[in-house]
Amino acid sequence: MLTTIGVIGKNEQTANDPVDATTMRSAYDVGRLVATGGGVIVTGGMGGVMLAASQGAKEAGGLTVAFLPSMDRATANPFVDIVFPTGLGRARNLLTARGCDAVIMIGGGCGTLNELTIAYADGRPVVVLRGSGGWSDRIEPVLYEGRYLDERKTIAVAFADTPEDVVALAFAAAKSGGEPGQHI
Amino acid sequence: MLTTIGVIGKNEQTANDPVDATTMRSAYDVGRLVATGGGVIVTGGMGGVMLAASQGAKEAGGLTVAFLPSMDRATANPFVDIVFPTGLGRARNLLTARGCDAVIMIGGGCGTLNELTIAYADGRPVVVLRGSGGWSDRIEPVLYEGRYLDERKTIAVAFADTPEDVVALAFAAAKSGGEPGQHI
Amino acid sequence: MLTTIGVIGKNEQTANDPVDATTMRSAYDVGRLVATGGGVIVTGGMGGVMLAASQGAKEAGGLTVAFLPSMDRATANPFVDIVFPTGLGRARNLLTARGCDAVIMIGGGCGTLNELTIAYADGRPVVVLRGSGGWSDRIEPVLYEGRYLDERKTIAVAFADTPEDVVALAFAAAKSGGEPGQHI
Amino acid sequence: MLTTIGVIGKNEQTANDPVDATTMRSAYDVGRLVATGGGVIVTGGMGGVMLAASQGAKEAGGLTVAFLPSMDRATANPFVDIVFPTGLGRARNLLTARGCDAVIMIGGGCGTLNELTIAYADGRPVVVLRGSGGWSDRIEPVLYEGRYLDERKTIAVAFADTPEDVVALAFAAAKSGGEPGQHI
Repeated sequence: MLTTIGVIGKNEQTANDPVDATTMRSAYDVGRLVATGGGVIVTGGMGGVMLAASQGAKEAGGLTVAFLPSMDRATANPFVDIVFPTGLGRARNLLTARGCDAVIMIGGGCGTLNELTIAYADGRPVVVLRGSGGWSDRIEPVLYEGRYLDERKTIAVAFADTPEDVVALAFAAAKSGGEPGQHI
Repeated sequence: MLTTIGVIGKNEQTANDPVDATTMRSAYDVGRLVATGGGVIVTGGMGGVMLAASQGAKEAGGLTVAFLPSMDRATANPFVDIVFPTGLGRARNLLTARGCDAVIMIGGGCGTLNELTIAYADGRPVVVLRGSGGWSDRIEPVLYEGRYLDERKTIAVAFADTPEDVVALAFAAAKSGGEPGQHI
Repeated sequence: MLTTIGVIGKNEQTANDPVDATTMRSAYDVGRLVATGGGVIVTGGMGGVMLAASQGAKEAGGLTVAFLPSMDRATANPFVDIVFPTGLGRARNLLTARGCDAVIMIGGGCGTLNELTIAYADGRPVVVLRGSGGWSDRIEPVLYEGRYLDERKTIAVAFADTPEDVVALAFAAAKSGGEPGQHI
Repeated sequence: MLTTIGVIGKNEQTANDPVDATTMRSAYDVGRLVATGGGVIVTGGMGGVMLAASQGAKEAGGLTVAFLPSMDRATANPFVDIVFPTGLGRARNLLTARGCDAVIMIGGGCGTLNELTIAYADGRPVVVLRGSGGWSDRIEPVLYEGRYLDERKTIAVAFADTPEDVVALAFAAAKSGGEPGQHI
């Protein structure tokens, strides 16, 4: 069975709503490192962070899967190998967030925060790339005890500062089934 | 067509994980005021805030609907008139969060935060009861410009300090289809 | 807790795709009789059989609920009291089919057959109006032992010839939680 | 982008509910031929037809994906490369049925019929293996004009008598995006 690493982060819905170049580069590196490590990249198949991570994985010879909100596979970015049009709209967030062995979060708006809450509630390990903007930076100060999304302490959310560390923590959590935060 | 007001907030999963008496009283009052105002209360059908809001509505002669995670209608609290067992687990959060005319948030852990992200992404108005604990208090300081879940500014999240004000804002937003935050 | 009766059947997607007058009349009568018996009518909120059943219930003083495929509540027919826009497309079929105490099937195309399979798999009682066309007539000859959708015999599918008998069987099954087919 | 072929058919829920050896052999051959042709096999990840098709694909060097009803990846059969635990129960049928380029149906009970209705409604091509039992044999005599699930004629359902022909039709439909029935 292959190791699946979900990558969640900001989409580019319009040209006026870009993801900055540094975050795109980080997402690309995450995809590349996951592929090099033998993992399968799973995303929502759209632009921004999802595209960059898929491109990084493809250009390193990896395999990429995507769950599209629509039924139109032409909406997938060009770096997806296996595309699943779901027709479920934003409800498809469930699949990336809870279906993977571990999840990496890079930047992110409301949809990314939604995926974080789904992963946490199901006890899926999430590793957040610090400094990547959006909810990846906003969430840490307001976590319970700095690590949990609520007092149930379902699973610790982990944070790291570089694509290398984020990917290493994600693989470790995926293999142990344990909390990524315990490996820092 | 009747006005539907979703109430989201902390469940009591075990006896060791109670919702405090003040929050329960607030939820009860919200339910009562929604019923008095002619609205239908919609919840996830479980304990804690969901139970208190449903009880408040029932004891004021109102109508209550619930979407259960399981297929077992016996898991609904005793104050639900119309119960829909969904068998969708936590994915049933979608229904309360996006299906109602407006949503009131009281306290809340990860599941409540999940519902907030769903409502926001679909442009459903949410009014948060300040001082009710959990994510109702944690979220405000980290919102974009104090009102939005991301820079897309889909809809402002509103805040109020009393059950009376929360319910008034929710009805106003439900009727206008506009942002509850604009009515403060 | 109120008794919920789902009504599934053919939509009118275009003016060129009408439901015949006899079937519409039957659906109207089913809605009326469910309301008279104190049940809540639950449908997919669109036209055809869904509209007629809701109209029958409303004009008899009943309460009607609908689960819309879209997020646009303006797409509901005018006889719905409580409307839930789901944004789930056809996946909303799950809610009507498995969420109610019993389901009544009148005529029906592929979507209705889809709902029948969902109700059966979850052991929800379904009563089919014989002679109403579509899958309501096509399915009976190919059932396992004339009553089941597969050899697991999860729950017998019941058939009756008049709105009166269909509604009586549905209420009996809803109350007993048993197989409607056993009450004929 | 890789071609995805969903395989739907009867599960073995218990030892008392086996899939016969001929059907298992057919499913194995379908998996093998899809893999040989360069396609990815997608199933619900459980036993019976799903297991046999995945085994055939794996032993021919192919790639297999599965959508599990539960959150427990240990419930997947041992021939799955990429497993997605969905936690959606039977609602996960949506993913196999509408997410693939084409669907092959082998035998099947109520769940398989459910998946056929989903695929049809979304215009996904389905090729049925004649003689494989269950709904694969029961459905043909009651189709509209022998080919459609309702009078809307969304897409023709195709039938073939051997694993070789079924797979050939599925690939042709996947490539053209057209109706598999038109290629016979």
